[in-house]
Amino acid sequence: MRIALDAMGTDDAPAPEVAGALGALSHDPDLSVILVGDEPSLKAELAQHPGAPIERLTVVHATERVHAGESPALAVRRKRDSSISVGIKLHKQGEADAFVSAGSTGAVMAASLFILRPLPGVDRPAIGILLPTAREPVLMLDAGANVDCKPRHLLQFAHLGHIYARDAMELESPRVGLLNIGEEEGKGNEATVEARTLLAESGLNFVGNVEGRDIIKGDLDVLVCDGFVGNTLLKFYESVAEFIVALLQREIRLSHTTEQIDLREVFQVLDYAEYGGAPLLGVDGVAIICHGESPPKAIQNALGVAARAVRSDMVSHISRELAVASAPSGGG
Amino acid sequence: MRIALDAMGTDDAPAPEVAGALGALSHDPDLSVILVGDEPSLKAELAQHPGAPIERLTVVHATERVHAGESPALAVRRKRDSSISVGIKLHKQGEADAFVSAGSTGAVMAASLFILRPLPGVDRPAIGILLPTAREPVLMLDAGANVDCKPRHLLQFAHLGHIYARDAMELESPRVGLLNIGEEEGKGNEATVEARTLLAESGLNFVGNVEGRDIIKGDLDVLVCDGFVGNTLLKFYESVAEFIVALLQREIRLSHTTEQIDLREVFQVLDYAEYGGAPLLGVDGVAIICHGESPPKAIQNALGVAARAVRSDMVSHISRELAVASAPSGGG
Repeated sequence: MRIALDAMGTDDAPAPEVAGALGALSHDPDLSVILVGDEPSLKAELAQHPGAPIERLTVVHATERVHAGESPALAVRRKRDSSISVGIKLHKQGEADAFVSAGSTGAVMAASLFILRPLPGVDRPAIGILLPTAREPVLMLDAGANVDCKPRHLLQFAHLGHIYARDAMELESPRVGLLNIGEEEGKGNEATVEARTLLAESGLNFVGNVEGRDIIKGDLDVLVCDGFVGNTLLKFYESVAEFIVALLQREIRLSHTTEQIDLREVFQVLDYAEYGGAPLLGVDGVAIICHGESPPKAIQNALGVAARAVRSDMVSHISRELAVASAPSGGG
Repeated sequence: MRIALDAMGTDDAPAPEVAGALGALSHDPDLSVILVGDEPSLKAELAQHPGAPIERLTVVHATERVHAGESPALAVRRKRDSSISVGIKLHKQGEADAFVSAGSTGAVMAASLFILRPLPGVDRPAIGILLPTAREPVLMLDAGANVDCKPRHLLQFAHLGHIYARDAMELESPRVGLLNIGEEEGKGNEATVEARTLLAESGLNFVGNVEGRDIIKGDLDVLVCDGFVGNTLLKFYESVAEFIVALLQREIRLSHTTEQIDLREVFQVLDYAEYGGAPLLGVDGVAIICHGESPPKAIQNALGVAARAVRSDMVSHISRELAVASAPSGGG
């Protein structure tokens, strides 16, 4: 099992990437990691870890780096030797079984679509994000790749989410819900009203419409929505969590009891790093996107998720099951 | 100034309504309130408040009540003598200058559309909701009345929000933002890309696209979105705030410092009751909808907001300004 890791992705690259890779290697004896990025920086960083299992670590040089503000499409076209493009090409050519990056989400998506290509039966690859809830995290997709969605796209997202939750999250029969503004049939906008009918006939474990207030309860495993709503919810969630915790910290400080309160539990529940990256689902390969501020733990978890996706043969499952789902008799 | 108040709207009706009305009357000497609902219950409740200014309180009997689970359209058609329909008719006939209800949002909306009617130049009346932020609350509209919106509808929401924020919230030049998934021009779904252009030419104080993560910062006064996204965000926000506060309370309890932490400040910031109701904007009248769990304070504040909307002549401003905005040369 070899995973190509974009070592220039995080804001503090390459230190979190190298530390995360070493964490993953010590957890998984069958794993090898290909660090893709500026070779001198990577060699220098590796020298900081004298006990590293260098027999399972390869460095592949990439001369360029995609920066946060760049246009993803332009970056992919112009920077052919970026750590993102080089890493995805390694995966495409079979040198690596998966690709993980904490770089620009848009650039990873653009390069994946361009180099790996969508699978047959998938009109629109989607980004899945794990949202913290009161119980287990829920996989929400699409988190921003597709802003205008037809009912059949939402149906495809449901299939993609189902397969990822089953294969990479190891859930036996993932509960799939459709984000909507009411629970009853007939509620919603044009796309969700029709998507609900398609989902009810899909053969998936469809639990029905789910309202904004129900997400946090954690009663489902996969939440389907268009990328406009998904992206808005995701960004709003992060900011609200930060805001409320900041409000509370101020209050606790004012009451002079700082030492006696342990906020770690709260932060842990809200900590995306625990969950390990967002998969780009529906392309011909395993591509996992991490937050730009990922600590080593997040990189390590993302490598673990990528390995599970590869071992479970997720891509061929998607290819097979989506071909069936998109056949004329499958509706939509 | 006479306001008709649906006295059968809250879950604990009519006690919060009566207490809220008395609070508003003591704050505003020029106000009269018409309590609409079951006369015997209202007389009994008023008897609990011996010092009430009865010369400014009228009771109008309504034999029926719309319940939470009912279909709004059916309830309005079948229950002609509900407290909602009777109250709105009082407003329509000029017996009252405004209407306030904590009853079924759908029924208030349906009855307002049916009895008051939309103003000329308004294709789709919208519900505005005040969301708590790190600074002042932001008026988000539409909060759920219209799920599939064209760019011109979003433009109308912006005008409606601008006028309400100016007239009822007393902001001189309300900053209007468009909810979107990126700040740059060209970002978004079909409706928001075109709406951004219309808003830039609208003459409003348009501050551009606003992402999910920026809402909480409180850098704007009016946030425009379609009702699907707005309703989802609103319900999600309420549930996330409750969830995080519950997490924290558990943590504080575990650390045995319950008595020393004052969460009131946090709750106050997140307390919708402070802000006083959601206006239904674009109908020929002033209709304010409160949460079904509204305490007296929320009813009192909603009556205050309604009074400001009436005194500022908001409805004729909407009528005049929307007619200009929807004229052919106004675009859209």
